[in-house]
Amino acid sequence: MLTAEARARLTVVLVGARNPNNIGAAARAMQDFGFSDLRVVNEFAAPFEAAVLEAKSAVAAGEVMRAAKRFDSLAEAVADCTLVVGTTAVGDRQMKQAVVPVQQAGEVMRAAMAGEARVALLFGSEKTGLTSEQLSYCNVLTTIPMYQPEAARHLSMNLGQAVAVCLYELTRAGFEGAKEIPQQHEAAASAEDRERLTQLLLDVLHATGYSRRFPANASEPLVRQLAMQLGSTHREAMTWMGVLKQVLWRERGEG
Amino acid sequence: MLTAEARARLTVVLVGARNPNNIGAAARAMQDFGFSDLRVVNEFAAPFEAAVLEAKSAVAAGEVMRAAKRFDSLAEAVADCTLVVGTTAVGDRQMKQAVVPVQQAGEVMRAAMAGEARVALLFGSEKTGLTSEQLSYCNVLTTIPMYQPEAARHLSMNLGQAVAVCLYELTRAGFEGAKEIPQQHEAAASAEDRERLTQLLLDVLHATGYSRRFPANASEPLVRQLAMQLGSTHREAMTWMGVLKQVLWRERGEG
Repeated sequence: MLTAEARARLTVVLVGARNPNNIGAAARAMQDFGFSDLRVVNEFAAPFEAAVLEAKSAVAAGEVMRAAKRFDSLAEAVADCTLVVGTTAVGDRQMKQAVVPVQQAGEVMRAAMAGEARVALLFGSEKTGLTSEQLSYCNVLTTIPMYQPEAARHLSMNLGQAVAVCLYELTRAGFEGAKEIPQQHEAAASAEDRERLTQLLLDVLHATGYSRRFPANASEPLVRQLAMQLGSTHREAMTWMGVLKQVLWRERGEG
Repeated sequence: MLTAEARARLTVVLVGARNPNNIGAAARAMQDFGFSDLRVVNEFAAPFEAAVLEAKSAVAAGEVMRAAKRFDSLAEAVADCTLVVGTTAVGDRQMKQAVVPVQQAGEVMRAAMAGEARVALLFGSEKTGLTSEQLSYCNVLTTIPMYQPEAARHLSMNLGQAVAVCLYELTRAGFEGAKEIPQQHEAAASAEDRERLTQLLLDVLHATGYSRRFPANASEPLVRQLAMQLGSTHREAMTWMGVLKQVLWRERGEG
């Protein structure tokens, strides 16, 4: 079983959801499966506010929705998370990241939640899903395996249903095996560390002229993916920051 | 894997659903997971007709909804089924039948569908779920395990979400091999790539003066550990080499 402490370490993040009903449906699924931390990233406040208003009259998902928070940017919403998992429809993305079925992502998430990690599970907007730029914030990409007929149509699930299926998968198996996964005693690198590394690396690519010579390799989403690899622990991430800062310091003629 | 023939043997029956949106959502979940036979039992024709009308403009779940049939009675709707499985919230019923978790019911259903049986999966109305009378038509009762807090509230799932979770459970086992998820064919980074990265990174640390400032972080074994993380694929490793070479090129005053 997922303990109450482990459940509390999951954050569901809805990015760009437009329909207040879908936000409410996600909140209800969270309540059904025992999760409580909902964050909504949206440049417009309206859908979120409508969903909160609606929750005042909803018995079912009221608690989760009323405690939900809105963020202007994805980077802020996941800043305190050490594992960021993005959901995507297969065939829907331009990124080269590998996509694992939700069964497999669930194992990784449960192991992380058993430790001290805060885990974010991201869902994109109803229309587009997570964009390549948004997916670049993720350590793991996952998909709900769906039926692909011969003439493969573009399939995407209803947002509330996708949240329900993912949370069901997370909780269905109980917690077997989780004990045997060795715990890291070092603090993991957070999304905030990663974002600082991304920005530093972009600065380095720019200052050294790499971006001009190889612009195809230097787009922000690609660089964010590269920066994902810099340090699995906070300590390692700090070391990399030091290395990148040293390069910049020299570039700026201070060395 | 559930074969196309086996999938065709599942019938989803919505009993007394009042909200056309929920009927549409159930149809969409069926389409997502590759099922096609939807039957709606309702003494009033209005919700069903509204859902069919809506489906005419819906790309996603149109096919299933347009082929759906309405029945006046549950008995008629399941007449040709040899296994009838009813969904219910635990603690919600007066019946004495045993209730098994949906994981277990899924096994029974898949086994039946692999044979010649037509299998019905029943969902009750949004308000009441399946009544005792309706549950009495069932051979097996099943429930989606949900989070039960200490002060057990009355929990019931959103209808569309419950259908999605049950159909996911029915099909999830077949996807464990994840054959349908396209694999990356990109070459992994080799030990040779890693060693080149290690040496390049050592050169960068030296040339920028990092090694002098932070000797404790710059020993070869530690740097090799850092370089291990650079690039999981050969292509990514090459990108990192390019970045490091660019830094060196600048340091040597050639930029």
